[in-house]
Amino acid sequence: MSIQQDNRFQAIIGHAKEYGFVFPSSEIYDGLSAVYDYGPYGSELKKNIRDYWWKSMTQMHDNIVGIDAAIFMHPTTWKASGHVDNFSDPMIDNKDSKKRYRVDHLIEGYAEQLKDKGNPEKAEAVLASMEALLAKDDFSGLKQLIDDHKIVCAISGTGNWTEIRQFNLMFSTQLGSVAEEADTIYLRPETAQGIFVNFLNVQKTARMKIPFGIAQTGKAFRNEIVARQFIFRMREFEQMEMQFFVRPGTQKEWYEYWREQRLNWHLSLGLPAEKYKWHVHAKPAHYADNAVDIEYEFPFGFKEVEGIHSRTDFDLSSHQKFSGKKMTYFDPEINQHYVPYVIETSIGLDRMFLLILSNSYEEETITKEDGSTDSRVVMHIPAKIAPIKLALFPLTKKDGLPELAKELMEECKPHFRCFYEEKDAIGKRYRRQDAIGTPFCVTVDHQTKEDGTVTLRNRDTMTQQRIHRSELKNEILKAIF
Amino acid sequence: MSIQQDNRFQAIIGHAKEYGFVFPSSEIYDGLSAVYDYGPYGSELKKNIRDYWWKSMTQMHDNIVGIDAAIFMHPTTWKASGHVDNFSDPMIDNKDSKKRYRVDHLIEGYAEQLKDKGNPEKAEAVLASMEALLAKDDFSGLKQLIDDHKIVCAISGTGNWTEIRQFNLMFSTQLGSVAEEADTIYLRPETAQGIFVNFLNVQKTARMKIPFGIAQTGKAFRNEIVARQFIFRMREFEQMEMQFFVRPGTQKEWYEYWREQRLNWHLSLGLPAEKYKWHVHAKPAHYADNAVDIEYEFPFGFKEVEGIHSRTDFDLSSHQKFSGKKMTYFDPEINQHYVPYVIETSIGLDRMFLLILSNSYEEETITKEDGSTDSRVVMHIPAKIAPIKLALFPLTKKDGLPELAKELMEECKPHFRCFYEEKDAIGKRYRRQDAIGTPFCVTVDHQTKEDGTVTLRNRDTMTQQRIHRSELKNEILKAIF
Repeated sequence: MSIQQDNRFQAIIGHAKEYGFVFPSSEIYDGLSAVYDYGPYGSELKKNIRDYWWKSMTQMHDNIVGIDAAIFMHPTTWKASGHVDNFSDPMIDNKDSKKRYRVDHLIEGYAEQLKDKGNPEKAEAVLASMEALLAKDDFSGLKQLIDDHKIVCAISGTGNWTEIRQFNLMFSTQLGSVAEEADTIYLRPETAQGIFVNFLNVQKTARMKIPFGIAQTGKAFRNEIVARQFIFRMREFEQMEMQFFVRPGTQKEWYEYWREQRLNWHLSLGLPAEKYKWHVHAKPAHYADNAVDIEYEFPFGFKEVEGIHSRTDFDLSSHQKFSGKKMTYFDPEINQHYVPYVIETSIGLDRMFLLILSNSYEEETITKEDGSTDSRVVMHIPAKIAPIKLALFPLTKKDGLPELAKELMEECKPHFRCFYEEKDAIGKRYRRQDAIGTPFCVTVDHQTKEDGTVTLRNRDTMTQQRIHRSELKNEILKAIF
Repeated sequence: MSIQQDNRFQAIIGHAKEYGFVFPSSEIYDGLSAVYDYGPYGSELKKNIRDYWWKSMTQMHDNIVGIDAAIFMHPTTWKASGHVDNFSDPMIDNKDSKKRYRVDHLIEGYAEQLKDKGNPEKAEAVLASMEALLAKDDFSGLKQLIDDHKIVCAISGTGNWTEIRQFNLMFSTQLGSVAEEADTIYLRPETAQGIFVNFLNVQKTARMKIPFGIAQTGKAFRNEIVARQFIFRMREFEQMEMQFFVRPGTQKEWYEYWREQRLNWHLSLGLPAEKYKWHVHAKPAHYADNAVDIEYEFPFGFKEVEGIHSRTDFDLSSHQKFSGKKMTYFDPEINQHYVPYVIETSIGLDRMFLLILSNSYEEETITKEDGSTDSRVVMHIPAKIAPIKLALFPLTKKDGLPELAKELMEECKPHFRCFYEEKDAIGKRYRRQDAIGTPFCVTVDHQTKEDGTVTLRNRDTMTQQRIHRSELKNEILKAIF
């Protein structure tokens, strides 16, 4: 990340804190690593993104229904899904500092140092060796690589390492009170399995016919070793997932369909196509026959915000095996029973939130009519997901203007979120709304009392137009639908 | 619970499962005790209740903002809140069966037996003794009571008991990867503390002036020993809480204000006042100077669905003490710094969901025009929170009627959730929508092709009226707003 990009990222994080979007969790207790809380404007924005996704995926698709499965699931679920055996990272401990590292992060850090010291060829060679060894799960080879290059711990400065071991990323807890009987259960590391185990219940009770989808939003938890980049990689995060069940053999066409649909969803928010790119997985995970990420250019580079995965019948078949319950569907069109294939679309809500922040944040220099310049920080949040849709200002605190503005607010607020303010100069009030991304401000002045018109000001263009107060509500409703 | 009430409750649970409202969690693995998943119609209903609460509390109240704090919090939070020391139940183990009991449940069970055997006076005496001992935390006295009455374990049949011990109801897990450094953290047992620790961040970034409120919805977790009554008491559940910060000395008036506001919220859904009652706490919890529950008459009796608590400055003062950070507010009106007092409104989302199910479910006998009778199961879910708002049916599958109905659906579905069905007789289609609580069905028939009118059928009255198709969308929008 360049210094400029890094500055921009730090400015966004600072802005998010200062304007009530995102706070470090439990900040009065000096925070909790890689956990964040959403503040007044952040919680609205997050909810609006979630609602927009939910509406797009369920209400607008006749063949997709939702569910809301619990975070707690039967522990065998995670045996069947492969998480108990495979959801782990190779780790190494420094015996002197007691600090634990993810092996890939340790070696990557070393390669960065090589680059900084003007030795990029050696850095690339080290990374290539690492990739090859990781692909083979060759832990002793990786340990040898660390030893050969005398890679040391940043804290102790020594190369006194343990062997490399796998570390499972699931959080566990004990369910039930009787120690002898208590079950070790896990906090779900993904929401998808809540959909798979409910496949038959949903299909039968909602009488769904293949192809159909099941959508869900909810929390997931991963005990990340190195959680970083603000809310990009957190230990507690929220997913928005949809599993689309299809006839075996048709998965390729549905995979292509959902690739296109999902990118269109992003673009439907007015987000710039040039900031997106595809990352096709050359070697998809063991459960998939095709996988692609939608990447967005965050301030710290192109990173995954959503994945579209052709998961085959891996999950349903595995649950069939572990549960002993048939996970088949009878397809009346071809008169056959089969375990459906699955196309998954999985987007991180917190990442989408960070994407919106990153894309919206602008430090703008404004040239005024008299030639002087001014500056503002403005969040160009898409109007339909902005935390506040309309701010209402009386020009002054007297002459009945506050009453008029409040009257307008009472008309509007059952329909969308409004904000009333009468303190400070109008310009200052505009700036504050710009900073939280309010797309529209309306000012009530003395002319309003005469002819019923108000000034409607647009956040992005800063243009103002006079409209009749009776048109206000519908103007805003049109713009945010 | 009478047999009739019990039958009704069992019918509701069965209906909830059969019609895709609530499934046992991980049912293919034979379920997970006291954990449930919400199905296609349940997840919509639950979301609609949550959204209705959120809108009422935040959008409609200019002085309430929301937050969305993480489930994971710094562990000192729970020291300060008192949960580490006090959030526990006295438990006893039977040494033979290894079965653990909550002491009060064990003794209450024994008292029930006494009543069944025609000895209600003795039962009352036992219960009174128990209450007195519990109030004093007198564990040896409680043990003595169990021994004196020779209370036995239902499984082993013996009175071979351990001593009584406190059992904490919080779930714990380990955060971080380094065993030496890993923090034991808790899954929050209530959402309220996420609001308290963020009090200053919210107040400053959203520039709130007292009195003001902070609202939040989210999951909470309690390792209940005996979780029962379907989704009424679960180990994973969702709360909708609002903490209202006031000047010390004004808490009584705000407590009264929120009592009234919150009951009105329930009634605003058209729920019957006669099914509600107040339960004033004679002895509020240690942190409160006033507390009242809103109880609803569930099929298993009057039970708490919501609490309004005057929590004093207990929580903020305690966080101030444990964190060393000032939790004070400067009140410009009286020129004083103080730790605000708090009125809390706390409602269980799952309980509210169960309330809606309980209140909506009706097995109805219908007398037809020819004098014969028919029956239906209908869910009288308030229209504004019903999972599906409008079902659209072509009378037959031909003559272009499906195309007409689908055209109408395309007009309506961006505005509210619709459902299209063309299979089976209209009467059967009506019944299916009745069973999931769809307030309106519209039928497109041959007359529609002639004059553009459709038949709009009301779920509750079963009356039908012909309206022009151009009025349909707005008719429904009016009814659900």
